[in-house]
Amino acid sequence: MTGTVYLVGSGPGDPDLLTVKARRILDTVDVVLHDNLVSPAVLDTIPSHRCIDVGTSPSGSRTTQTAINEKLVKLATADKDVVRLKGGDPFVFGRGGEEAEYLARHEIPFEYVPGITSAVSAPGIAGIPITHRACASNVTIVTGHEDPSKPESTVDWESIAATGGTIVVLMGVSKLPAYTEALLKSGMDPTTPAALIERATWDAEHIAVGTLETLVSVRDQAGIDPPAVTVIGEVAAHAESVHPFLTSSTATPEVIGWVQQ
Amino acid sequence: MTGTVYLVGSGPGDPDLLTVKARRILDTVDVVLHDNLVSPAVLDTIPSHRCIDVGTSPSGSRTTQTAINEKLVKLATADKDVVRLKGGDPFVFGRGGEEAEYLARHEIPFEYVPGITSAVSAPGIAGIPITHRACASNVTIVTGHEDPSKPESTVDWESIAATGGTIVVLMGVSKLPAYTEALLKSGMDPTTPAALIERATWDAEHIAVGTLETLVSVRDQAGIDPPAVTVIGEVAAHAESVHPFLTSSTATPEVIGWVQQ
Repeated sequence: MTGTVYLVGSGPGDPDLLTVKARRILDTVDVVLHDNLVSPAVLDTIPSHRCIDVGTSPSGSRTTQTAINEKLVKLATADKDVVRLKGGDPFVFGRGGEEAEYLARHEIPFEYVPGITSAVSAPGIAGIPITHRACASNVTIVTGHEDPSKPESTVDWESIAATGGTIVVLMGVSKLPAYTEALLKSGMDPTTPAALIERATWDAEHIAVGTLETLVSVRDQAGIDPPAVTVIGEVAAHAESVHPFLTSSTATPEVIGWVQQ
Repeated sequence: MTGTVYLVGSGPGDPDLLTVKARRILDTVDVVLHDNLVSPAVLDTIPSHRCIDVGTSPSGSRTTQTAINEKLVKLATADKDVVRLKGGDPFVFGRGGEEAEYLARHEIPFEYVPGITSAVSAPGIAGIPITHRACASNVTIVTGHEDPSKPESTVDWESIAATGGTIVVLMGVSKLPAYTEALLKSGMDPTTPAALIERATWDAEHIAVGTLETLVSVRDQAGIDPPAVTVIGEVAAHAESVHPFLTSSTATPEVIGWVQQ
């Protein structure tokens, strides 16, 4: 007998933003492998004896992707039903694709259970629609982990700027100076509205808005820390006008710090 | 007294992919305004006397966005709590941004409740991760409604092709010949893997794969009809290898027709 591996997205952080399906699977599965991008509020809803933290090993080093893959196969082969729990969605910069391939190669049945990606929901929670008929008919989602000044970077910021659509950068707090510089150099308007949303739907949510040119100093003055989502494009200007009427009935407490420059 | 308007995403179609929060709000709200992009399976879970179809009027014509905006304000002003229910997410080509602005201008409190966008979940359900460390460090999501041959088109397919990332086209079945032609003309490799996913998680799900060059004939031979999601990029090739081990415990029945050329 072989168990099933569920590649499950936990959404941006609020347990109420899990899907009905993810909630049910989390409540019945044998083991949950999670990392540090899953919010504490979500983890608090799962009995700790069923959780395995694969984000950081007891020695403080990161668990390698290979070790995680092997653990998934080992547990499923021992007839355990396993959730691999991710922040956001497993297939949006979550390495879910690599895990799916590994599982298929080892003939382990698996299911993909999508989650609310923070690429869409973090801006949304701040009142920023990532698309808009009037000003954004496309959106590019990109990882901010790569350093654009290094030759091995595969992100072509110039082409991304040229699309004319919204740009959403995930995990892009520390390299913000490098990629805003790359976008400015490629000719993007320095006054393009831009925003940073830290820990959307977490207990310590924080929103800061500025322009492509001012966003680094906005980040520093507002004290924005990872994890945060960056939004660059006309849509970022929408936050200010709608924000006073934006309410939230979310289960987790929210502290929205509205910082503007 | 003023009611609250909830801009709620219903996800790709399976009611199990509603968020816990959306489910609770749908079960308690006074009125639900929905259109034709919400799946019948989701609508079946809401008492019909609380539903108003704003997709098509009794005469067969489409309800205008202005009429929908006015109806939301009128209901909220009459102290009703109202859900504006969308397919996918309200802020991904859902006109949620326009509704949010209108509500704010009329001082109506509103809440954004994100949904699973089919831009991520439809490819995922077919075993296609829209990003991948090995081959896709960015993804551009674009509407296929615009005709690229018309001068008023705001979609710059050449720049989108140049990003080198995955391209996901929503509502792009009918204009598939036009935008695949635009991508080929801009120099994109004709053998780039590509896939179409029709009605992901609906009763009649259908997946067809090919290449940028063959996708139009694949569409015609497979009989792919709207609504469907188009994925263009190396990641589309991943579907074939993982598909045999992809399972689904979804509540709605699924018919996955796997068509390849």
